[in-house]
This record gives sequence, structure tokens and C-alpha cells, in this order.
Amino acid sequence: MKKFKNFSEWFDEILFNAEVVDNRYPVKGFAVYKSWGSRIIKNILKILEQNLDETGHSPMLFPVVIPEDAFAKESEHIKGFGSEVFWVTHAGERRLDKRLLLRPTSETAMYPMFALWVRSHADLPLKVYQSVAVYRYETKATRPLFRMREFLWNEGHTAHKDWEDAERQVKEVIEIYSDVFKRLGLSYLMLKRPDFDKFAGAAYSVAFDAWNPDGRVNQIGTVHNLGDNFSKAFEIAYEDTDGTHKNVIQTCYGFGVSRVVAAVVAQHGDDRGLILPPEIAPIQVVIIPIVYKEVAHEVNAYARELYEKLKVEGIRVHLDDSDDKTPGEKFYYWEIFGVPVRAEVGPRDQKERKVTLSERVNLERRIVDFENVAEAVKEFFVEILRNLEERSSLVLKSLIVTTPDASSLNEIIESKKIARVCWCENIECAEKIREISGGEIRGHRIDVEEKPEAPCIICGRQAKKVVYIARAY
Amino acid sequence: MKKFKNFSEWFDEILFNAEVVDNRYPVKGFAVYKSWGSRIIKNILKILEQNLDETGHSPMLFPVVIPEDAFAKESEHIKGFGSEVFWVTHAGERRLDKRLLLRPTSETAMYPMFALWVRSHADLPLKVYQSVAVYRYETKATRPLFRMREFLWNEGHTAHKDWEDAERQVKEVIEIYSDVFKRLGLSYLMLKRPDFDKFAGAAYSVAFDAWNPDGRVNQIGTVHNLGDNFSKAFEIAYEDTDGTHKNVIQTCYGFGVSRVVAAVVAQHGDDRGLILPPEIAPIQVVIIPIVYKEVAHEVNAYARELYEKLKVEGIRVHLDDSDDKTPGEKFYYWEIFGVPVRAEVGPRDQKERKVTLSERVNLERRIVDFENVAEAVKEFFVEILRNLEERSSLVLKSLIVTTPDASSLNEIIESKKIARVCWCENIECAEKIREISGGEIRGHRIDVEEKPEAPCIICGRQAKKVVYIARAY
Repeated sequence: MKKFKNFSEWFDEILFNAEVVDNRYPVKGFAVYKSWGSRIIKNILKILEQNLDETGHSPMLFPVVIPEDAFAKESEHIKGFGSEVFWVTHAGERRLDKRLLLRPTSETAMYPMFALWVRSHADLPLKVYQSVAVYRYETKATRPLFRMREFLWNEGHTAHKDWEDAERQVKEVIEIYSDVFKRLGLSYLMLKRPDFDKFAGAAYSVAFDAWNPDGRVNQIGTVHNLGDNFSKAFEIAYEDTDGTHKNVIQTCYGFGVSRVVAAVVAQHGDDRGLILPPEIAPIQVVIIPIVYKEVAHEVNAYARELYEKLKVEGIRVHLDDSDDKTPGEKFYYWEIFGVPVRAEVGPRDQKERKVTLSERVNLERRIVDFENVAEAVKEFFVEILRNLEERSSLVLKSLIVTTPDASSLNEIIESKKIARVCWCENIECAEKIREISGGEIRGHRIDVEEKPEAPCIICGRQAKKVVYIARAY
Repeated sequence: MKKFKNFSEWFDEILFNAEVVDNRYPVKGFAVYKSWGSRIIKNILKILEQNLDETGHSPMLFPVVIPEDAFAKESEHIKGFGSEVFWVTHAGERRLDKRLLLRPTSETAMYPMFALWVRSHADLPLKVYQSVAVYRYETKATRPLFRMREFLWNEGHTAHKDWEDAERQVKEVIEIYSDVFKRLGLSYLMLKRPDFDKFAGAAYSVAFDAWNPDGRVNQIGTVHNLGDNFSKAFEIAYEDTDGTHKNVIQTCYGFGVSRVVAAVVAQHGDDRGLILPPEIAPIQVVIIPIVYKEVAHEVNAYARELYEKLKVEGIRVHLDDSDDKTPGEKFYYWEIFGVPVRAEVGPRDQKERKVTLSERVNLERRIVDFENVAEAVKEFFVEILRNLEERSSLVLKSLIVTTPDASSLNEIIESKKIARVCWCENIECAEKIREISGGEIRGHRIDVEEKPEAPCIICGRQAKKVVYIARAY
């Protein structure tokens, strides 16, 4: 399989052919999201934003530029991001009095405003999100969707009266992200990052690492409890019921839109092209009339009838009745774009009022009555998602190799697997792991409790955590 | 009326109180769109983008940065925008090899890609849009929503095989924008700009100038026929059916999202607060139970029943059953936010299964049966839009003063009106008009033909156009 053998080439080809992204924009690390890609993104954001709206989040939109002094307020944060921000220094011919940076993430854009908005306990919790592009000057090689200097995400930022409420928020967001990923059929490890790899300014970080055919994990989402690190720096405080003033406890989280698209392409696609979960497919059903001259009129009319029927059912349907391609060429074309269900109608279908449906994952075909076609399509949608989910989750399982022995670590990482090992939590052992394997400790699972049943893979002392080691984007 | 007497203060107060925009962001000309504002914007974009999708436009997303060399390719364009672009010069500690600018508009981001995408006549027309923020270093005083250094818009860019097809496109877009503005109840003048005021690089420009209570017109949309100015500079050419290579003819257009929100606030709002056209109101109906202790349970249950009934009808409804405010305070609160319809339910309504509806424009009340409440609400929606539209269009008519006499020009502009005059089309007379009146020639109407019936207001020679003069944002 080309996808697993030569992932990088396979991936670039799909992005180009299915018009997801055009990577030829004349600035490195910046790409154009084409029509198909943009529509997929809109559909993903719709699911996510609906979830956020229903849990009391407020959509907002903050400026792309952040003044230097606000950015510098939280010391860990500027240490973490300072070397990779883009600076706006001039406007027209004049030098700006105050340099501005393009947001690499929006804590330092939002929190000066939070300080104005939060006055009393009645203003809490404050829950805000925005879907925007962010900017990071990646010095490693850039890769379309995976590692860009401009990438799309949805970021959430909250303020709470105490640690417990912030913890409740972390749980809520983990559920929201899990729900969205489930509806996309994605498989991932939900990991608490080791302390040395947490977000710059956070108390702790949880991340969703999706598997990828090349063995590198793809961080598609992160959730951070910020404690009061930022609220102290930005003086975000409230008056409690007892009259005392307290700093809020904050969380923030990022849903990596560009990377989620990468995961959908990489986990579900096959050597024919993209495969899209029905909920996010810009076109869910493509109708292809199989037309012979003498009955062309009847078949085309039947195809249009089918189009109208599916459309009123709220299905995103497209009728491909162009005559510049043969039906075979049309099959091939729409397979590249990953349209979940194809409906063929030929003279016989028309005469018997049947429709021939095929689904994109296993290319299974079903002939159904015209009257039942909408139900049959919807059943197919459910099965397609289940099949995608199962297939992806099987691959993830097959990639994880429990490893008691340091000497095999390198081989496992080299063979594009994820090593599962026991670790004592010492930074020296973490560094050793990276050194000998080329992979990094991504963290321990928090969705299931895993107790170490062996000593630390490096030092042999008592292990504290079962952790996962992989290369990452 | 405060709105007409002291527009600027009235406007800022509404934006703040109705949580449309918070203007306290610590960079001049950049503001935060708060929850209510963001939701209004989403609803406006939904109408616009649906129109664009249905007319064969492709949604895309281009980078925010443009390399200096691409920006410099079309000479008129760089002359027009060069002095007001923000420059990104550094990343982290290093100086970039090639300076990047933040898009002030996206011709020079898109057209290098168009040159790659357009090969043959079969690739045409190419119709692309994106909804994004753009960046212009305004040197005049900035004003929230009206004149920002970061503002939101939707921009469309197209390529066509010939001038005729481009002209057809201009007409299509004018229809689309007119439809959206109609659904928002806005009144404006649709004007062809004089040559000296056309878009930098265009053959001609058409603009939508909305009226504003302070007499300044607010350009909420523009449509440009670019001819082959850009396609020559960017070498966008196609092979025609006869084998010859031709430059495409292009159009581009901008729908000023931030300014459309400004127009909705400014034209429809009153001294109580915002008034929102129902289609874009984040909450279309607010239910306020009038509760007395002894019957609280029944009334609240009835209010919830009403909530469910309206919700299943697809109406965006909110039940305000909080007990921290009196009903009167709630009325006042939701009037500020411009919710189009209020539904009160008290003990008597509950007993008789009635609902008391009031609408926001004229505060008209109607008592309706519970069974018919959804229809009654929808009727109110239609009436509200019609009332807003009529009221706004009457104001626009009252603002226009036909002026045969140059000596009264200044007085008309000073009294916050729009002068309608005859003009010979000479630039000297246009400059004179600006000098004596403080207003500018905004152009002549293209939706109706107006023949000059007097000589040029300045030089007395034969007039060629009836034009409109106003101050502008």
C-alpha cells in the first residue's frame, strides 16, 4: 500500500488532486485552502462550534496583532513562543512606535480584556472561543496541514472562580473534543503530557495524539489548566461573595483544524483518494446517470428525480450529468474527492425504479427501491462512519508495541510504531529515551488508568507511569 | 433624538452596551468582536455565503501575508495601497529575507495562484471568495466598525474569458449584494464612482453607500471590473477554442462585513438600543415570564412549553427565567440588544393559554393564542423587516437635497445631508466641490438613469452626470 509505504508522496498527491490545499503559494509554510478543503473545514467547525455554543461558550473575535508588552507579561509564555513569532514593525514607510506580533496563540491578546470584563463572581465562568489562523515561525521543515507557519485552529479560553471549576471545564472540553473526533472516526491517544513538554505557562497539559501512517503522531487537540499563572500576570481578579479579591483560575484549549483535516485524510484515505466521513463531506452523495443514447432522456429525468428526493431529505447531493466524461471516469473522479456514497442510475434502474448505491470505504454495492433510497443512504452513512472508525482504531492498536527493553526502542520507532514503556518520571531517562530512539515521551493515558508493571525502561528503578513514545509532527 | 443629534456618542454606547464590539483593545484601530457582535456577523455571512455558493462561487482561504514582489506587480495597485500596508519584517530574532505585508485586499495573494489554475477556456469562469480580516494602516482617526486598521469583509475574485462575461458577473454580484442588503433592511445609494475615485487597478468601480445619521456615507460594498490590468501583470491567460492565448478579464468585489454591522446599528437602532432584523438576530424571541409567588410554578412551566414550541419551529428563542432581575429590567435589557420580538407570559396568559407578543420597532403588542404563536411570531418578523426597511428608506430620501446652486452646497453638507447636483465630469470642478463643501463626489446612480436637467453646478457648462456629494467614512 502506497499510503503506508510512501506516506509523504501519497499525502501531497491527495491534497493536490482532491483540491484540499495548494502548496505552491510563494511564501514558505503558507498555503491556500481550496474549495473542497474549505468546505470540509466549514463542516468540521460547524460540529465543533455547535458543541461549544451548547455548553455556554461565547464566540468572539480578537485582533491578529498583539502588542509586545502584553506578550511579554507571562514569563514562561514568552520563553516558549518568543523565538517563533512574526513581528510587524512598519506601516507604509513609517516605523511603528510599538512592535506588534502576529498571534501564535491568543492568551496575551485575550487576557488584558478578561481583566476588564471580570469584576465579580457573577461574571464567572467566562468561556470564550474563536476560530482563526495563528502564526508560528517553524524552523523545522514545514509540511502541508501538519506543520505550517500559518495554521487554522479553534481556541477556547476560560476563567473560573476556583481550581475545581477549572477542572470541571477541562473535563467538559475533553468530552467535546472527543465527541467531534468520534464523529470524524478518528483514533488517537489521549495523553497527559510530561511536565517538561507542557504548554508554556500551563499547570498541566492534556493532548490528543492521532496516529499517522508514517508513525509520527499528529497532535490534533490540546487542553491546558493554566492555574493562576496568567491571571496573576494579567491581574484578572474577582470579588468573591465574602468581599475578598481572588485571581481567577484559567483553562485554555486548542482544536487543530488544519491538523484534524490532515488526520482525516491520513487515517481514512486510501490509494484511490480521500474518504470523507459523511457528516463533513461537502458532497455526500454523487448521482451518476449511466446514459445510452436511445433512453438518455428517461434516465436523466429519473436521475433528476432522485436528486430532488435526496435534496429535500437534507442530504448534500450532486448530480454529475456532464457529458465530458464517461461514467467510469466520473467514478474515478469522485473517488479521489472521497464522496461517501455514489448513486448510479441506468436504464434498468430507471425502468424498475431502483437505485444502485455504492459506498466509498469497502466499495460495497446495494440495489434499493427508489422509495427507500433516502433511508438506505442514511444507513450507509452510519455504516461508513462505523467502518472508518473501526479500521482506524485497529490500525492504532496495531501500531502500539509494549516494550520492556531499551535496546529494541530504536527499532520500534524506526519501523513507524509507537512504543509503550514504563518510565520513572526522571528527565534524564526521558532525554536518554529521545537519544536512543529518536522518539519522544508523549505522556500517559488519562482515559484509562495504566499501572506500570515493569521498572523504568532506562534506569531500572521503580516506574511511575506507562508512557507512549513516538516521533511527532 | 440622541441618535441624530449626537451620533458618535450614541453609536459607541450601543456597541458597548449591546456587546457588539469592545474598543479598548490596546492597539489603535483594532477591536474585539464580542459574543453578540460575532453572532450577528455569523448570521450575515451565512446569508451572503449561501448566495455566493448558489451562484457557483468556490469558498477558499488564502494566506494573510503577501510577498513584496507579488504586491508590487500591478503599478496602480501598489500606488493605491503602498502607503497603508503593515510590514512583517522579522521572525523571532531574525530578519526575513523577503518582507511580507498583511493583505489590505487579496488581489496580489490570489492572482499568482490564478495564473497556475487557469489553463484553458474550460477553467473559466473562475469564481472564488473568502471571508477574512484585512489590514490597512488608516492615518485618519479610526472609528469602531466604520474605519478600523483591521476589518472584516468577504471578498470575491473572478476570471472570465471576455469583457461581456465579466460584465455579466458584475451584474450578478450587484444582485447578490442587493439581496443581502434588502434582507437586512438597509438603504443606500448604488453609485458608479467617478474615475478619480475608482479602485486602484480597476477599469471602473460600483459602490453601495449606506446613509448614516451623521450625514457621512458608509461604503458597505464595492464591485470592480478590473479588465485585464491584473491578468497582464500576473500573466493569467487561457487557451481559447481556436488555439490562441488570451488574458482573462477579471472582476473583484468586497462586502464590508464590519461596515454592514455598522449600518445595521446606525440605520435601525434607536434611543433604547439596537434593533436587529430577525434573520440576523442571535436571539429572535425572548420569553419573559411574569411570575407571582403563588402561581410561579404554573407560569414557568407554561413559559417552558412556549420555549419548546418556538424552538421546534426553528426560531432562535431564549427563555429569560433568571430571578436576579424584575420583568421591567429584563424588558430594558433585551431592548438594548435589539431582540426583535418579546413574548411575555403572566398568570392570566397562562390560564387563558395566550401569549403577549411585542415587537421591537414600534413596540406594538399583540395577544395571540398559544396554538398560533409561531405563525404570529413569523408574521411579526416579516412586518419588522418591512418597517425597518421603510423607515430607513424614508430617512435616505429625506437626506437627499437636489442642489442647483453652489453657494448652498456647504450648508447642505454641514447640515448632515447628501447633495444631489449636476456635474460636467471635469476633475477641476470636482476639486472645487470638495473645497467649498467639505464633501466628495460619490458618483452617479446606476440602478436608475438620471439625466442632468441643469448645467454643472460649478462651471455652468453642460453637465454630464447627476452625482451625489457627501462626506464619507
